[in-house]
Amino acid sequence: MIKKIRKKKKRRKFKNPSVNQIPGKMVYVGEKSTQEKAIEVFEYNKDMLEFQKFTATEEVLDYRNTPHTTWIDFVGLTHTNDIEILGKHFGLHPLLLEDVVNTRQRPKIEVYDDYVFISVKMLYYDNGNSLVKEHISLAFGHNFVLSFQESESEVFDGIRERLKNKTGRLRTFKSDYLAYALLDAIVDNYFEVVEHIAERVEKLEDLLFLEQSQENIAQDIQKAKREIIRIRKATFPIKEVIVHLENENHKLIEKRTKSYIRDLHDHAIQVAENIDIYREMTWGLMDMYMSTISNKMNEVMKVLTIMASIFIPLTFIAGIYGMNFDYMPELQLKYGYFYVWGLMLLVFFGLLWYFKRKKWL
Amino acid sequence: MIKKIRKKKKRRKFKNPSVNQIPGKMVYVGEKSTQEKAIEVFEYNKDMLEFQKFTATEEVLDYRNTPHTTWIDFVGLTHTNDIEILGKHFGLHPLLLEDVVNTRQRPKIEVYDDYVFISVKMLYYDNGNSLVKEHISLAFGHNFVLSFQESESEVFDGIRERLKNKTGRLRTFKSDYLAYALLDAIVDNYFEVVEHIAERVEKLEDLLFLEQSQENIAQDIQKAKREIIRIRKATFPIKEVIVHLENENHKLIEKRTKSYIRDLHDHAIQVAENIDIYREMTWGLMDMYMSTISNKMNEVMKVLTIMASIFIPLTFIAGIYGMNFDYMPELQLKYGYFYVWGLMLLVFFGLLWYFKRKKWL
Amino acid sequence: MIKKIRKKKKRRKFKNPSVNQIPGKMVYVGEKSTQEKAIEVFEYNKDMLEFQKFTATEEVLDYRNTPHTTWIDFVGLTHTNDIEILGKHFGLHPLLLEDVVNTRQRPKIEVYDDYVFISVKMLYYDNGNSLVKEHISLAFGHNFVLSFQESESEVFDGIRERLKNKTGRLRTFKSDYLAYALLDAIVDNYFEVVEHIAERVEKLEDLLFLEQSQENIAQDIQKAKREIIRIRKATFPIKEVIVHLENENHKLIEKRTKSYIRDLHDHAIQVAENIDIYREMTWGLMDMYMSTISNKMNEVMKVLTIMASIFIPLTFIAGIYGMNFDYMPELQLKYGYFYVWGLMLLVFFGLLWYFKRKKWL
Amino acid sequence: MIKKIRKKKKRRKFKNPSVNQIPGKMVYVGEKSTQEKAIEVFEYNKDMLEFQKFTATEEVLDYRNTPHTTWIDFVGLTHTNDIEILGKHFGLHPLLLEDVVNTRQRPKIEVYDDYVFISVKMLYYDNGNSLVKEHISLAFGHNFVLSFQESESEVFDGIRERLKNKTGRLRTFKSDYLAYALLDAIVDNYFEVVEHIAERVEKLEDLLFLEQSQENIAQDIQKAKREIIRIRKATFPIKEVIVHLENENHKLIEKRTKSYIRDLHDHAIQVAENIDIYREMTWGLMDMYMSTISNKMNEVMKVLTIMASIFIPLTFIAGIYGMNFDYMPELQLKYGYFYVWGLMLLVFFGLLWYFKRKKWL
Amino acid sequence: MIKKIRKKKKRRKFKNPSVNQIPGKMVYVGEKSTQEKAIEVFEYNKDMLEFQKFTATEEVLDYRNTPHTTWIDFVGLTHTNDIEILGKHFGLHPLLLEDVVNTRQRPKIEVYDDYVFISVKMLYYDNGNSLVKEHISLAFGHNFVLSFQESESEVFDGIRERLKNKTGRLRTFKSDYLAYALLDAIVDNYFEVVEHIAERVEKLEDLLFLEQSQENIAQDIQKAKREIIRIRKATFPIKEVIVHLENENHKLIEKRTKSYIRDLHDHAIQVAENIDIYREMTWGLMDMYMSTISNKMNEVMKVLTIMASIFIPLTFIAGIYGMNFDYMPELQLKYGYFYVWGLMLLVFFGLLWYFKRKKWL
Ligand SMILES: [Mg+2]
Ligand SMILES: [Mg+2]
Ligand SMILES: [Mg+2]
Ligand SMILES: [Mg+2]
Ligand SMILES: [Mg+2]
Ligand SMILES: [Mg+2]
Ligand SMILES: [Mg+2]
Ligand SMILES: [Mg+2]
Ligand SMILES: [Mg+2]
Ligand SMILES: [Mg+2]
Ligand SMILES: [Mg+2]
Ligand SMILES: [Mg+2]
Ligand SMILES: [Mg+2]
Ligand SMILES: [Mg+2]
Ligand SMILES: [Mg+2]
Ligand SMILES: [Mg+2]
Ligand SMILES: [Mg+2]
Ligand SMILES: [Mg+2]
Ligand SMILES: [Mg+2]
Ligand SMILES: [Mg+2]
Ligand SMILES: [Mg+2]
Ligand SMILES: [Mg+2]
Ligand SMILES: [Mg+2]
Ligand SMILES: [Mg+2]
Ligand SMILES: [Mg+2]
Ligand SMILES: [Mg+2]
Ligand SMILES: [Mg+2]
Ligand SMILES: [Mg+2]
Ligand SMILES: [Mg+2]
Ligand SMILES: [Mg+2]
Ligand SMILES: [Mg+2]
Repeated sequence: MIKKIRKKKKRRKFKNPSVNQIPGKMVYVGEKSTQEKAIEVFEYNKDMLEFQKFTATEEVLDYRNTPHTTWIDFVGLTHTNDIEILGKHFGLHPLLLEDVVNTRQRPKIEVYDDYVFISVKMLYYDNGNSLVKEHISLAFGHNFVLSFQESESEVFDGIRERLKNKTGRLRTFKSDYLAYALLDAIVDNYFEVVEHIAERVEKLEDLLFLEQSQENIAQDIQKAKREIIRIRKATFPIKEVIVHLENENHKLIEKRTKSYIRDLHDHAIQVAENIDIYREMTWGLMDMYMSTISNKMNEVMKVLTIMASIFIPLTFIAGIYGMNFDYMPELQLKYGYFYVWGLMLLVFFGLLWYFKRKKWL
Repeated sequence: MIKKIRKKKKRRKFKNPSVNQIPGKMVYVGEKSTQEKAIEVFEYNKDMLEFQKFTATEEVLDYRNTPHTTWIDFVGLTHTNDIEILGKHFGLHPLLLEDVVNTRQRPKIEVYDDYVFISVKMLYYDNGNSLVKEHISLAFGHNFVLSFQESESEVFDGIRERLKNKTGRLRTFKSDYLAYALLDAIVDNYFEVVEHIAERVEKLEDLLFLEQSQENIAQDIQKAKREIIRIRKATFPIKEVIVHLENENHKLIEKRTKSYIRDLHDHAIQVAENIDIYREMTWGLMDMYMSTISNKMNEVMKVLTIMASIFIPLTFIAGIYGMNFDYMPELQLKYGYFYVWGLMLLVFFGLLWYFKRKKWL
Repeated sequence: MIKKIRKKKKRRKFKNPSVNQIPGKMVYVGEKSTQEKAIEVFEYNKDMLEFQKFTATEEVLDYRNTPHTTWIDFVGLTHTNDIEILGKHFGLHPLLLEDVVNTRQRPKIEVYDDYVFISVKMLYYDNGNSLVKEHISLAFGHNFVLSFQESESEVFDGIRERLKNKTGRLRTFKSDYLAYALLDAIVDNYFEVVEHIAERVEKLEDLLFLEQSQENIAQDIQKAKREIIRIRKATFPIKEVIVHLENENHKLIEKRTKSYIRDLHDHAIQVAENIDIYREMTWGLMDMYMSTISNKMNEVMKVLTIMASIFIPLTFIAGIYGMNFDYMPELQLKYGYFYVWGLMLLVFFGLLWYFKRKKWL
Repeated sequence: MIKKIRKKKKRRKFKNPSVNQIPGKMVYVGEKSTQEKAIEVFEYNKDMLEFQKFTATEEVLDYRNTPHTTWIDFVGLTHTNDIEILGKHFGLHPLLLEDVVNTRQRPKIEVYDDYVFISVKMLYYDNGNSLVKEHISLAFGHNFVLSFQESESEVFDGIRERLKNKTGRLRTFKSDYLAYALLDAIVDNYFEVVEHIAERVEKLEDLLFLEQSQENIAQDIQKAKREIIRIRKATFPIKEVIVHLENENHKLIEKRTKSYIRDLHDHAIQVAENIDIYREMTWGLMDMYMSTISNKMNEVMKVLTIMASIFIPLTFIAGIYGMNFDYMPELQLKYGYFYVWGLMLLVFFGLLWYFKRKKWL
Repeated sequence: MIKKIRKKKKRRKFKNPSVNQIPGKMVYVGEKSTQEKAIEVFEYNKDMLEFQKFTATEEVLDYRNTPHTTWIDFVGLTHTNDIEILGKHFGLHPLLLEDVVNTRQRPKIEVYDDYVFISVKMLYYDNGNSLVKEHISLAFGHNFVLSFQESESEVFDGIRERLKNKTGRLRTFKSDYLAYALLDAIVDNYFEVVEHIAERVEKLEDLLFLEQSQENIAQDIQKAKREIIRIRKATFPIKEVIVHLENENHKLIEKRTKSYIRDLHDHAIQVAENIDIYREMTWGLMDMYMSTISNKMNEVMKVLTIMASIFIPLTFIAGIYGMNFDYMPELQLKYGYFYVWGLMLLVFFGLLWYFKRKKWL
């Protein structure tokens, strides 16, 4: 166990890389993953769709000048050089490129004349049921959308599918709608995460209601608290991002897209409200757990009190007649022994009756 | 009991249907109910009232063009196709139709050029005394009001009655007033729900004041907390909806209706204030319950302490004279046995007096 | 005791009268009192004062057209017909008349072109020291002030007195100042209520400081909490009402009255601040009570531990020499019995010294 | 002790004097002090300073018309007549004069065309280390500053000193700067009060860290809470007062004075922040105290458990061989007595080892 | 230990130096350090860099008129005379110079026509792992930046390095960017401090999860609380400072610098969010610690109850047959002794089974 503590300490011992760095210097701060670089390009309009995978960043630069909408999905934030080349080619500010690779960056939106930059967190539970938090950045300009992810995930699969569907809305709208659709897929996934935490909190509550001997439930409650705090931190700022997008009068954002962004705003509020509800419930669980412990202690004390209160006086009576005085008249009575038994039974049932009346039995 | 936990888990296991869906795709997310589709139409003005029930959606579409105010009340949110046909015919945005059938949608208002859309929660306690939360949507435009409900309820019965009354205000006002009246009926019902929770909280408080052995009261408090949290979530957003309606300068909303909306605003604030008062009181109950448990434990400990403190020393004295030493002068005293009894009574009453003075007896 | 709970339940069982009612329909919702209707009229200006009591509402209607300021004080909110006649004659909106008789209406102000309507709560402690909350409504227009009260109280006696005083400010100002004066009398009374709750909280604190055996103090704290919550709910909204009045540029409100309203605003803030201070203190009392219980339990446990820890080992020693082995050398020692007494005294004083060092004695 | 409670009750029984009073009627509400009236006048400009003490209010009225700045410092709020004469002569509104003598008035600022009125609280610890709260009012107009205090204090001594210094800023600025300087002296004193409460909270924390038997520490924490609540109430509103002064564009407030008021604003925020920090720490102390009590109880219980668990089984063994059965083979063994001792030592050390392993010893 | 308390008391006993002082009078309020005065000057533009150290303040005054950007870094806030000379020469307002040396000054920004003044806190952990809080002030005007520090620290080493780098952004931007870079270095260091506190809180949580006998963990939690409160107070106001800087349209702040300030704003928010997360977690730890103590007490009580409940009845049985009645038939039974052993084993295993069923074993 002590080891576990040490390991945790070590995990944090690496020097925070952003200290003493020039602003705009791109530094990847997450765990060094071995994620291969992967670039997917979707080129589409109402009438056509072209899909291709690349590994060399230089090969996708020409997509900037195509007349159709282009979605370049870049996976692998450790490849800072490639991101720099790609970002500069599409005109992104160096400080934004720093934000793309800084996995600790909080969700935000930055509106420039020619493009809009959005950075958010993608959340999901992996197979081992532990929460994964991924840093995702989007930039959309005239005819292009760039997306930067830490690793390949299934969150955008639905959008890939819908792009292939000729009659869908995605192909008839512009880059602003694709950016909206990507954000929408991320927020939809937040609902999954909320469901997961809801199940967990309700299970903890059920366990407390059973009042069985679960001593480590305090830990589970504390862990749930911690996870809810983490989820809250990752998801709450997206509301501001979406509100900003909703109120922005940018040439890139079409009027018909605004209704969809308003709808997304709605979803973001709903996620936030649900998280706060489970947060409040989890806080209450600790109070309830304390009352459960106290009730158990009460039960333990009652058993002790009943046993001791009944047998200590009886033992005293037996002790009396175990004394060795030369002259103890009761000892010579013929039925003295039986009289004493009678007295003891009287005391025994008297105390039982007393405890019954107190509802301790 | 373990089963109960598993079942709950299963209940949530269905895939959240809104993930990976196209925005505007109508997906009913509540429990699959067997509610039959039911359509009621009220056609009225100052001078006439026509009431009819339908089962086929197509039959009501012509009401759009009648010169009188028409209220179409559609029951059965699982019938998404019918809702789509009806909604499109009356010109509702696809995203709104998605909200009509999404029972998890939070209360909101959307103002379009030709109509106003409102989505809220209807709350009531059913016969089994469990809280029912129903998703209700309203849309009112020139000469029409649409309402969409999950199932038939009695909440709007009063309005049906008043429509039949020729001299009432309802028939002389337009669609905006009917929409107000429907919201008013819903908010009036919130007061009923608040009364119900008030009774429950006060009953819990009374039980705590009796200080009897109610070990599961912590659960009841936690359940009341949870229910208050749910009610709060369902009712609070209606304030924003009504404020928005109050401040809206829409051609559909007549000036004379504004006073009524302001009155409704008042009621919504009152509901919210009352909920928060019972919320605060419920939170305090847990603290009070903890003090009750601690007081009980104090009582148990006192009994134990009194019994043990009195009889352990007496038993010790008896033990002394139960020793088998060859030479123990007291044993041979003629009245030794009675002297010891005297000593024991002295100890007994001395300790009784001590505990009395400490007010433990 | 169980009966008490049932009764409370019954008290709330009456159907909430505002459900399924037409808006503007006047429904008295308080307890059915037997309060007789009583109407007092003060007609005054700088030079004259005329005072008269009436029982028939119709007789006071003509006062609307007198050239002097008229104060009509109507007592008895169950008389909804009379209030309707009076209100309509003075031009009040039907929704306001509903608010006049709805004793659950929260404090509010409504400004119309020709009059200003204010509804607040009057609070005082009755002879039996229980808090009385009364619903009061005021409406002032050109040359008239209407006031509607649940029952006769002494709160406005000071104003009646001052009206009779020819040189006072009241007679030289208009209806706006009289309305201010009535509000001022109500707010002044709030200070009395705050004093009362302050005394109570400080008495509870003193009782806790004495640390005597008061087991029902938790109930008293909870009751104080509940009362503070009620007072807060009744008094806080008056701040908004007064701020609204202060900022209103209405032809009825003279500039010279504004200074007085600002002063009233000051008082309302002071009431609110004081309530919150006693609220915070009361919340802290529960924590302190818990520490008191725990300290008492500590004391109980110490007595038990000392008694048991001292006499159980001694009893064991006595038990040793109560054994019946054929060969126990100590038993035959001449002074064996006294040696054992020596050993016991050693153990006894050793343990006493140990507990003294631990400061348990 | 009971007496103390009664006395407190009595202290509050005096009728709140502001009830049923005409607004603007001056009523002193503090304790009836025997403070003599004292009037000090400073008449100064860049080149001259004249200082004089008066006892008759009429003698200072002429200072209104002197061409230099005049500071009239009036001590003794019970002398309402003198304050009324002085206030009226300098043109103060009657409601302000009411505020001057109402020691319960919360801090506020009122800006009139010809003067600015400020009312705040002066706080300091007296010799007996109890907190003194004094009501102070300032009014500054063209060429004059009036100050009204409850009793003579040392807080303004520094300013009197600086006035005598010809080269100081005070003599070259106008009445606005003198008013600022008086407020600054008051706020500087708040820092002293914060230091005092800081010391006290830190001492309580140290006592808790020592974990010694201090049973009345809960009372000390509660008292510290109460004092912090009082200080907070007295000092927080001064922020609003200063912000108002800072934003006011009044002919009386020179631009060069504004920087000083901004600096004062800074200090007021700092005071408020520090109070809230000590407030939060004090609230945490109660939680820590509870954990201290629980730890002590744990220790008590361990001693009991160890003593009882060790000696009760041993006593049972001794009891076995104290039985008087005719046939008990062990009793006749030659070394039976010693075998039993062996068994007892085994049990004794076995249990010791068990408790050691559990880390209870 | 008592000594430690006294020392703390003494530490605060020095008279607060700002009381009774003229505003703008420079008074150093920190601990009297022996820090030598040290002045470093960087003179640079795109093409040149000149670096020099000085000890006499007079020697650096001429740098005001050089055509290049000059950074004068002054170390040693006790040298108030030098700071006054330097500050006056560069035109700083006397109140700002007071703020430079007042180490208790809260973070703030003041914008004057010719320069911008910023005062913040630098935080770092020293070698002994205790938190160091340093007061730092910056002033930047046309072609100059002044910085005033308490003592030499490594926080600005990175900036010194980057200044020497000809191609870096620092040399091509003006004084506003250098000021930004200094603030950025300070905020980057806050991340280090947050990491440190994060490690500590997580270590405390791990210790609680191990549930070992750490009685002083309550103290560690309280100390962590106190440190988080201190860090919060020092770091939160920097957000306001940066927001003010971001929104300021001052001739000194170039448009290209604004993006960098916005980025800094982002970092400040992130620091604040992280601090609040660890604050919330720390507050929860106390609740968890209480549950740990209660669980331990439960375990202790169970051991006592099991031991006492098993052996007290057995001892009673032994006591029965230790009585000395003349006629006790069981005593004469041949196998009476063994029958009694049988009975005792029955009781023993019966109780063991009972406690097992209750899951206490
Ligand atoms: Mg909590
Ligand atoms: Mg809590
Ligand atoms: Mg809580
Ligand atoms: Mg809690
Ligand atoms: Mg709590
Ligand atoms: Mg709670
Ligand atoms: Mg609470
Ligand atoms: Mg509480
Ligand atoms: Mg609470
Ligand atoms: Mg609590
Ligand atoms: Mg609580
Ligand atoms: Mg509390
Ligand atoms: Mg609380
Ligand atoms: Mg609290
Ligand atoms: Mg508290
Ligand atoms: Mg508490
Ligand atoms: Mg509490
Ligand atoms: Mg609490
Ligand atoms: Mg607390
Ligand atoms: Mg608290
Ligand atoms: Mg707290
Ligand atoms: Mg706390
Ligand atoms: Mg607390
Ligand atoms: Mg607490
Ligand atoms: Mg807390
Ligand atoms: Mg807490
Ligand atoms: Mg908490
Ligand atoms: Mg907590
Ligand atoms: Mg808590
Ligand atoms: Mg707490
Ligand atoms: Mg707690």
